[in-house]
Amino acid sequence: MQALILAGGSGTRFWPLSRRHRPKQLLPLDSEVSLLRETLLRLQPLIAVEDVWVSTTEALAEAIRHELPELPAAHILAEPEGRNTAPAIGWAVRSMPEAARRDLIAVLPADHRVAHPEAFRAALRTAADAIAARDRVMTLGVRPRRPDTGFGYLEIESGADPSGVHRVRRFVEKPDAATAEEYLASGRYLWNAGIFVFRGTSFLEVVTRLVPDLARGLEAIAAEPHRTAELYAALPSTSIDYAVMEKLDDLATVPLECGWSDLGSWEALSEVLTPDEAGNAGSGESVAVDARDNLLFAEHGTIAVLGVEGLVVVRTGDAVLVMPKSRSQEVRKLITELGARGRNELL
Amino acid sequence: MQALILAGGSGTRFWPLSRRHRPKQLLPLDSEVSLLRETLLRLQPLIAVEDVWVSTTEALAEAIRHELPELPAAHILAEPEGRNTAPAIGWAVRSMPEAARRDLIAVLPADHRVAHPEAFRAALRTAADAIAARDRVMTLGVRPRRPDTGFGYLEIESGADPSGVHRVRRFVEKPDAATAEEYLASGRYLWNAGIFVFRGTSFLEVVTRLVPDLARGLEAIAAEPHRTAELYAALPSTSIDYAVMEKLDDLATVPLECGWSDLGSWEALSEVLTPDEAGNAGSGESVAVDARDNLLFAEHGTIAVLGVEGLVVVRTGDAVLVMPKSRSQEVRKLITELGARGRNELL
Repeated sequence: MQALILAGGSGTRFWPLSRRHRPKQLLPLDSEVSLLRETLLRLQPLIAVEDVWVSTTEALAEAIRHELPELPAAHILAEPEGRNTAPAIGWAVRSMPEAARRDLIAVLPADHRVAHPEAFRAALRTAADAIAARDRVMTLGVRPRRPDTGFGYLEIESGADPSGVHRVRRFVEKPDAATAEEYLASGRYLWNAGIFVFRGTSFLEVVTRLVPDLARGLEAIAAEPHRTAELYAALPSTSIDYAVMEKLDDLATVPLECGWSDLGSWEALSEVLTPDEAGNAGSGESVAVDARDNLLFAEHGTIAVLGVEGLVVVRTGDAVLVMPKSRSQEVRKLITELGARGRNELL
Repeated sequence: MQALILAGGSGTRFWPLSRRHRPKQLLPLDSEVSLLRETLLRLQPLIAVEDVWVSTTEALAEAIRHELPELPAAHILAEPEGRNTAPAIGWAVRSMPEAARRDLIAVLPADHRVAHPEAFRAALRTAADAIAARDRVMTLGVRPRRPDTGFGYLEIESGADPSGVHRVRRFVEKPDAATAEEYLASGRYLWNAGIFVFRGTSFLEVVTRLVPDLARGLEAIAAEPHRTAELYAALPSTSIDYAVMEKLDDLATVPLECGWSDLGSWEALSEVLTPDEAGNAGSGESVAVDARDNLLFAEHGTIAVLGVEGLVVVRTGDAVLVMPKSRSQEVRKLITELGARGRNELL
């Protein structure tokens, strides 16, 4: 099996730790190594390093080569520009040598957390076995632990086959709170984690059928690779979910229970770190007096808090962020303000 | 008139900005220059630089010479060790050349803020005139603006002489809240700001009368200056208030209204800085989104806050402090904790 790690993201939700040239997937957040390297490590021994591919942007390619030096250089596929996930995955698969393209390919985001890698690999194996039995696109859906309104959901048919595979009835958008409660109670919904397994050649056939513009563009690039930049810019910018997955009538899923988190915010990170007796968690040097339930993340220097509760405090060499955990989704507002002031060195 | 600035303090209340070798008086807090330099500047033109003396400790002498290079080197008097204010002032006065000692001397803390230096100098002039009229020890007492329980008070006799000088009836310790309210309402109490004016020779006579042990020790040092370190260690360790001022029956005071603050904490500093429209005040680079009434003090790097209120956030090159303003008096607890962990580089 091959793995294709999607590492082109450039989110802002972990500012000030994340920056334009050091996005979330390159950060160590819940361990000593970056999320990207964790993603690579958790595949082994199921998928060998020489069978791992990384899709990213030209702006990040050098940093990723540096982060994963053991990867063959040709396996780091740098998009000329970001055009959303359908072109990224399509181009990466089409760019692989034929042997790899004919193999099974697991597509994985580079910036998620998995507490139990063995359970994760077992789900990948189950998906691979399901494809061996009957060729189709598989997805791994996360068994929900709370009525989260921040994810898309997969509605599954009740009743799995003996290996635990469910047919996917439909993709559903992020629900409101009441609907999310219903989803959780029903047991028939999984979080869409953006993890897919398919045979490369079969996936390209699906693309040809469902997104013919994209398929033609990919063939044009394959025919004239020296024109990649120009042709890439003309690919339709669309997501894999919208363009492909939601339209498949034969999609199946393996429910995943592996301590998964998308680490979507500082608050989400604080929930997966092990707190001390006072409920404070984090990384680096900190001292807390009469302070509870804070995330204290010091990449540089020491954080000292006294008498505060429920805060995120993040210290880098050039900045510090202080906000309530509950407002972690709003970090972008600070970045917008810094941008408006021309503080580009902080972005 | 001579000035004697007391700059031997080593407080911890402005940690992490203040450190053992960079105490409060060497920090710029409410202006671009240090409190010590502000203290020097506000004396001019009443007291020329060549008539200013600084009492400090050996540990700080070099830093103070560096901070006030225009001061004659011999005017920086470094105590071999800190023995409280009575020996510090007594030794400094006794060490001055006879001409200075016979002059009037204003004793001033090095780490206070005065918003209106002209009013401050006018009060010093009034005190000097009062001594010229009749030789005695004068103090400058601050007209209270709130029922503060953090200061000692001077009870004054109602009815000033035509120049505005009041006799001091007694020194009183820090009051409880109800008593402080009474003091404020009565109009007969002033804050003891530790500012004194006297003729040096007259002061030494008072010391001889009220603290004979100290006077003998000072004479011994004057006779054998090469034994200063040994003899200094034997001086009685006592405060000028307790040993001298509280025992004088002829003490008088000039009420001071000059925007005075002892800047006793981060909260006290936040009250004298000019806030922006959202009530945030501070120094250095900061960005605040939906955040109110915070003190944002960045000596190094940028402070970014979102959705927080009433906090102190202080960023230095190696540390950051976050606490509610209302708990500013408790900073020492963090220092104690850091000390217990052996983090001496942060103390």
